[in-house]
Amino acid sequence: MKIDVILLPKETAALDLSDSVCIVLDIFRATTTIVTALANGCKAITPALSIEDAQKLASQIGAVLFAGERQSIKIEGYEFGNSPFEFCKEKVTGRNIVMTTTNGTIAIKAAEKAYRTFIGSFVNAKAVCRQAKQHGKDLVIVCAGTDGLFSLEDTLCAGLLVQLLKAECEVTLSDSALAALLLYAQAKDTLVETAVQSRNGKRLYDLRRMDDVEYCLSADLFTIVPQYIAGKIVLENK
Amino acid sequence: MKIDVILLPKETAALDLSDSVCIVLDIFRATTTIVTALANGCKAITPALSIEDAQKLASQIGAVLFAGERQSIKIEGYEFGNSPFEFCKEKVTGRNIVMTTTNGTIAIKAAEKAYRTFIGSFVNAKAVCRQAKQHGKDLVIVCAGTDGLFSLEDTLCAGLLVQLLKAECEVTLSDSALAALLLYAQAKDTLVETAVQSRNGKRLYDLRRMDDVEYCLSADLFTIVPQYIAGKIVLENK
Repeated sequence: MKIDVILLPKETAALDLSDSVCIVLDIFRATTTIVTALANGCKAITPALSIEDAQKLASQIGAVLFAGERQSIKIEGYEFGNSPFEFCKEKVTGRNIVMTTTNGTIAIKAAEKAYRTFIGSFVNAKAVCRQAKQHGKDLVIVCAGTDGLFSLEDTLCAGLLVQLLKAECEVTLSDSALAALLLYAQAKDTLVETAVQSRNGKRLYDLRRMDDVEYCLSADLFTIVPQYIAGKIVLENK
Repeated sequence: MKIDVILLPKETAALDLSDSVCIVLDIFRATTTIVTALANGCKAITPALSIEDAQKLASQIGAVLFAGERQSIKIEGYEFGNSPFEFCKEKVTGRNIVMTTTNGTIAIKAAEKAYRTFIGSFVNAKAVCRQAKQHGKDLVIVCAGTDGLFSLEDTLCAGLLVQLLKAECEVTLSDSALAALLLYAQAKDTLVETAVQSRNGKRLYDLRRMDDVEYCLSADLFTIVPQYIAGKIVLENK
């Protein structure tokens, strides 16, 4: 299996992903939150690129809850921001959510032409690797980045996924996949201290959301794998 | 001093570099070769984006030697390819060279609008850091990459430069600068073994140029700092 890590979603524009499995990562916090919401019983999450787009999609879907942030702050009037702790069972079970975030939804949509598009994070790392390798395709891990710039925490998670896959099957790594692997190896014993030095980490620290930082870096809390298919994020095989 | 690492030169298009010092890195092999040639007495190197461009520039300069490669292979009819070992004192002293390489010259030209544009490498790492910080500006390290993709070896060198600067002055690191620092810390004790797993490293290995790989990863062979100014690469203050 060849593994490539795309450090910014805009790089995917130049790629033919149709024969690749993609895993999308936006660790602080969209993909971590999506995994959490679906693990807590949310029916489906529809990603939207803008507030207008979210409104339009909601009018097509029917009864929905809105989730979204800009610069880590909840959008006014929305039911949810982007903290995974908000998406508890009581609030999300059986519900449809329309979500628009600064970076995560852009990355998910950038990967939509892949053979399969899975939602990854630390909190479902092993599960998403297991799922990704079942298809016998090459793997492209898409890091969401932040406002078009490289994000440390996404690449750290990419490194964990590469490490997990390398331990279980024969892999050929691109330079960026190799870099992610080395980066994770260097940081894994001080993951919170390292990730909080990142731009998003600092922002969450300043917003007093260290609980989010620690949660988003916790590996394997869940065994579910959300898939983006036909415009919606749902659990695989549901 | 803020330090940013640009993982691909195309990212520089979106940046205003006019108040930043840039260091350009193309470790395998353009910037290593440029530093070597100038250390060996070459008068100036004029980077050209294409073979046609090289021809045109040469006709303006007068007596020149041509250097260049495509996919690590010397361009037919040129005096030099892109191996630093070719650029010995006997051949380059006092000469003007026009150089076109696959990635390095693109990166150098991408950084030409900076306040100062220096040519960096492992072989002049300490010297280029010393020079870069003298200007009291923020620093942008531009990695050439390979055919528009991320290159491991360029980012490893960026990590060494970040480490050297961090040891000597107060620095604020972007996520990519922090990642480069961590990457270098992980790989520094096995630099050759790590870098030879990269795409360019493998290619040079296949071409039986392990001498180039080892040379290009040797820190501080020289204390000179080439600067790109008015279309030419010359030694600073010359």
